Amino acid sequence: MSVDTKQETALVAVDWGTSSLRGARIAADGTVLEEKSAPRGILSVPAGGFPSAFQDEFGGWLAPGGLCLISGMAGSRQGWVEAPYCPCPAGFAELGAKLAWLDVPSQDGASPRVAIVPGLCCNQDTTPDVMRGEEVQIFGAMRLTGINTGSFVLPGTHSKWATVEHGRVTGFRTYMTGEFYALLSQHSILARTLKADAPFDETAFAQGVQRAREPGGLLHHAFSARTLSLFEKMEPGPLASYLSGLVIGEELRTRHLETDIEVVLIGSPALTQRYAQALALHGAGSRSLGSEATWAGLHALAGSLAQGAS
Amino acid sequence: MSVDTKQETALVAVDWGTSSLRGARIAADGTVLEEKSAPRGILSVPAGGFPSAFQDEFGGWLAPGGLCLISGMAGSRQGWVEAPYCPCPAGFAELGAKLAWLDVPSQDGASPRVAIVPGLCCNQDTTPDVMRGEEVQIFGAMRLTGINTGSFVLPGTHSKWATVEHGRVTGFRTYMTGEFYALLSQHSILARTLKADAPFDETAFAQGVQRAREPGGLLHHAFSARTLSLFEKMEPGPLASYLSGLVIGEELRTRHLETDIEVVLIGSPALTQRYAQALALHGAGSRSLGSEATWAGLHALAGSLAQGAS
Repeated sequence: MSVDTKQETALVAVDWGTSSLRGARIAADGTVLEEKSAPRGILSVPAGGFPSAFQDEFGGWLAPGGLCLISGMAGSRQGWVEAPYCPCPAGFAELGAKLAWLDVPSQDGASPRVAIVPGLCCNQDTTPDVMRGEEVQIFGAMRLTGINTGSFVLPGTHSKWATVEHGRVTGFRTYMTGEFYALLSQHSILARTLKADAPFDETAFAQGVQRAREPGGLLHHAFSARTLSLFEKMEPGPLASYLSGLVIGEELRTRHLETDIEVVLIGSPALTQRYAQALALHGAGSRSLGSEATWAGLHALAGSLAQGAS
Repeated sequence: MSVDTKQETALVAVDWGTSSLRGARIAADGTVLEEKSAPRGILSVPAGGFPSAFQDEFGGWLAPGGLCLISGMAGSRQGWVEAPYCPCPAGFAELGAKLAWLDVPSQDGASPRVAIVPGLCCNQDTTPDVMRGEEVQIFGAMRLTGINTGSFVLPGTHSKWATVEHGRVTGFRTYMTGEFYALLSQHSILARTLKADAPFDETAFAQGVQRAREPGGLLHHAFSARTLSLFEKMEPGPLASYLSGLVIGEELRTRHLETDIEVVLIGSPALTQRYAQALALHGAGSRSLGSEATWAGLHALAGSLAQGAS
């Protein structure tokens, strides 16, 4: 993508997560003009420190009266201001109506229009589920792929599987897959033998995914990472990939995937590649997107606001 | 049970685990004459230190030519001597034939006969599973209950579900249930809200067990411990019991229990009570035994040795 630094900023898009802060200057046509990131996640911002942290990082990008949309944990109870979850089903209209507008004083000229995008919730009357930030990525992925009905999966510490119908998220489920993997590989009895920094082993990963489909469940299969090592049937190197296959395979097992499905994966290449492989072992197809989905989502949301206002 | 300290020791029974060492002086009729325990688990014993630790604790109990049977992790690779796993199906005959006899010098008179009981393994050609120490408790429980065919369950850090047919363990499965609970309650995102030391809450526990039966799997359901708290649908107090119900419920879910089954539970009262409640929610019955199963198992094994020798 050729970047024209002279093009005017139509939107400052910010993804303010737990441990990192990323931003992009975006043109009216969606072109990303400039990106930056800083290790200033919400957990590192002192109480009351959000306005000045924001000015430090993005004050220079915001023209008088300019628009800034912020997604992610900045809208959580521990963030800048709490933006209450928007219940599913939710599309651009519902998200736009629930934006939490901030009172950010102007440096000079008209005050900028700065809002925090709410997260989504579902099943809030029984056993709730929540996401914050992923909803923007899903909307961005819809825009980038043209898919408005389907399954969107965001692998990570807390993986999200969202069902989208006609451009609206109708429901989703969180899986603590990445966190379980970290707990097991770092703090469990398996940590003694497993080499967490060993290179990814595709064969061992596939073994884990297949193993997860057999009866017994994760509580049982996780122990096989110990016994395979005890009986010298697997080296400490591939063991980490096997365990990764076990937990990702367990996530997929519960989905009862139809084989003609194509899933949209959104995440880092390292993770989406593993999920794509695991999905293929289940006979399911996938296509993958990265961080561009966040900027596309915030840009599309800004567009829907302008449309609503016109 | 009335204890006659003048009765003669027929067997010194020892359960040498990872973190603790327990022993009992047992009469020919199975009466436990005396018990002792020490915080001298195998991990605390320095290399080469097993013979002297053993003499310190049990030398005074062993008559010249007396018999001592040791079960548990003392027979593991990190223990006194490695007693290779005995493959299933296994009964007294198979265990007795695989005892690892130790060369323990006599203090005075004939040398004592000291042996380590091997653990059991199953599926050793494909995905192996193992136990060490639990096999003795299962054999003891068979003797105490008179049940020679059924399901024997040993809840704990690594729970074991064993299938017993005509007095022999035909197979078993390990579940890392207790370890998963510890990881989630101490090291995961749930640790922030959950009060691990709160009193046991039967209602929340039952909610967890029932929740585990719904679609989604443990990776998904564990996240509900966070969202129920986030939406103020559960207090931090009962949350620990809810999580306990989720993991024990997940273990039970994978068993596809028939409702007319009666399971024999062997373990600490705190744990067997939780399992009994969870089993009842699945429509299954249970009876519970405690540490007496270990002494009964080693005594029965000693009896089978004497019988074999006669």
